[in-house]
Amino acid sequence: MKLLSYEFEGASRLGALVDDGVVDIGRRLGVNSLRHLLEAGKLGAATELVGAQPDHVLGDVAFLPLIPDPAHFYCVGVNYADHLKEVQDAGIVRPKPKHPSLFPRFPESLVAHDRPLQIPKVSDEFDYEAELAVVIGKGGRYIDEADALNHVAGYTCFNDGSVRDWQYHSSQVTSGKNFWQTGGLGPWLVTADEIPDPGCLDIKLLLNGKTLQDSNTRHLIFNVAQIIAYASALIPLKPGDVIATGTPSGVGFSRTPPIFMKAGDICEVQIEKIGTLRNTVEKAVG
Amino acid sequence: MKLLSYEFEGASRLGALVDDGVVDIGRRLGVNSLRHLLEAGKLGAATELVGAQPDHVLGDVAFLPLIPDPAHFYCVGVNYADHLKEVQDAGIVRPKPKHPSLFPRFPESLVAHDRPLQIPKVSDEFDYEAELAVVIGKGGRYIDEADALNHVAGYTCFNDGSVRDWQYHSSQVTSGKNFWQTGGLGPWLVTADEIPDPGCLDIKLLLNGKTLQDSNTRHLIFNVAQIIAYASALIPLKPGDVIATGTPSGVGFSRTPPIFMKAGDICEVQIEKIGTLRNTVEKAVG
Repeated sequence: MKLLSYEFEGASRLGALVDDGVVDIGRRLGVNSLRHLLEAGKLGAATELVGAQPDHVLGDVAFLPLIPDPAHFYCVGVNYADHLKEVQDAGIVRPKPKHPSLFPRFPESLVAHDRPLQIPKVSDEFDYEAELAVVIGKGGRYIDEADALNHVAGYTCFNDGSVRDWQYHSSQVTSGKNFWQTGGLGPWLVTADEIPDPGCLDIKLLLNGKTLQDSNTRHLIFNVAQIIAYASALIPLKPGDVIATGTPSGVGFSRTPPIFMKAGDICEVQIEKIGTLRNTVEKAVG
Repeated sequence: MKLLSYEFEGASRLGALVDDGVVDIGRRLGVNSLRHLLEAGKLGAATELVGAQPDHVLGDVAFLPLIPDPAHFYCVGVNYADHLKEVQDAGIVRPKPKHPSLFPRFPESLVAHDRPLQIPKVSDEFDYEAELAVVIGKGGRYIDEADALNHVAGYTCFNDGSVRDWQYHSSQVTSGKNFWQTGGLGPWLVTADEIPDPGCLDIKLLLNGKTLQDSNTRHLIFNVAQIIAYASALIPLKPGDVIATGTPSGVGFSRTPPIFMKAGDICEVQIEKIGTLRNTVEKAVG
């Protein structure tokens, strides 16, 4: 099942994708967001509605970030061995991690599928990062690694848009990872029943149609279950929380010469069994 | 004026402290939290209520974290020169910062005045950090440094309780700074009119009555206005956002031998013109 967050006639809605139609399951189930659906434990009830008559044609709805308001959005830094090497080659001191390296994104940094990523006015070093993102369905603390995948509602694509000069202003990457509307999240959730093993998915990034990242989630240093177990030790994970699992090699800033995104570019994250997150790029005016 | 968040008869309330009495200004102004008061622009209206008849004796109310639900809680890492030196002496690679080093805290990591800080079950390396915390009154983006203090509602004490082994699991300190109920925030907001210059306040940390940190905010590497200007470039700051400005030297983990907090300890942050944030310490059972 594919679930999407969208706007129609000015209201935020939750839909199921059926071919090229969208079934407004939020209205039918009395929930107004994917987070709300998961909190209410209604993912199973949603499954029973995928045969309903579509309310919209997909082309008529405007996507929202898949989870516009996660309580917690964790990203994992340098979680592919080949990306670690290119970061080190770029002169950043970063030993091979013994534990997942977590940093957060605030919700205002997220962008919907088909909406423009914003290059902030204070930088032109805006880079892409293709990532598999995990959406938590069942919360918990001190989740066992062996049980961790049972806490997953599903998976989506993430573009961890990074303002590189600000990212390396200090040892903490928070600032470069949290500019307004710089991280694409979507297009939809593919529920976990369709992806029993998130550790064998091809993942690519295309900029203006050219493949710049091309890997597979089998190369993750810490796999999805390990990351969930680790993150859940801090504070309880909640339904609707998002964990972005890190990006493979091929990012723009470590290339010679570097590639940064420019206004008018089209940036796509493609993940096997999920689909394509596509964003245009524009320079923010304010 | 001193404002506090508290619980009384099971409900969250907002009060003004008058001698040893508490005026329930939230009820009088139709707001249920300090964040809500600031969002509604009613800080001025609150001022007019400090002469009202107190509703409670201070000793009868249970404190809540001053802002239980900030949209954004930023901390600044290594922002006192003497603390930078002790971190470097402890073997951590950390050059002198050219920009504020930001990391976040999630709300679930906060603890009210007079409530116990929780040593997580997975670590015994629980350390204290006395900090001046700034509460944003008026939001904004790309705030000018010269105008930044006009965006401040007031100041409070913060104990940036840190789980040191987890903090240094990777280059990002997020995990060690976000364990459940590890950071004390309070006891109250002292409004900015009473602290026109936040850059000349004595700040101390006492553990079981013994002074372990003793400095003054004049030693901040980046002052309050500079931090606000920097943080506001990312995403807009909002009313009720909190920025903790960093801790001076004297933390426990860099001492020989190290000092970590134990169950039964009493930890106090004292800041001139604000008061004393006091927390007990206990070992979390789950």
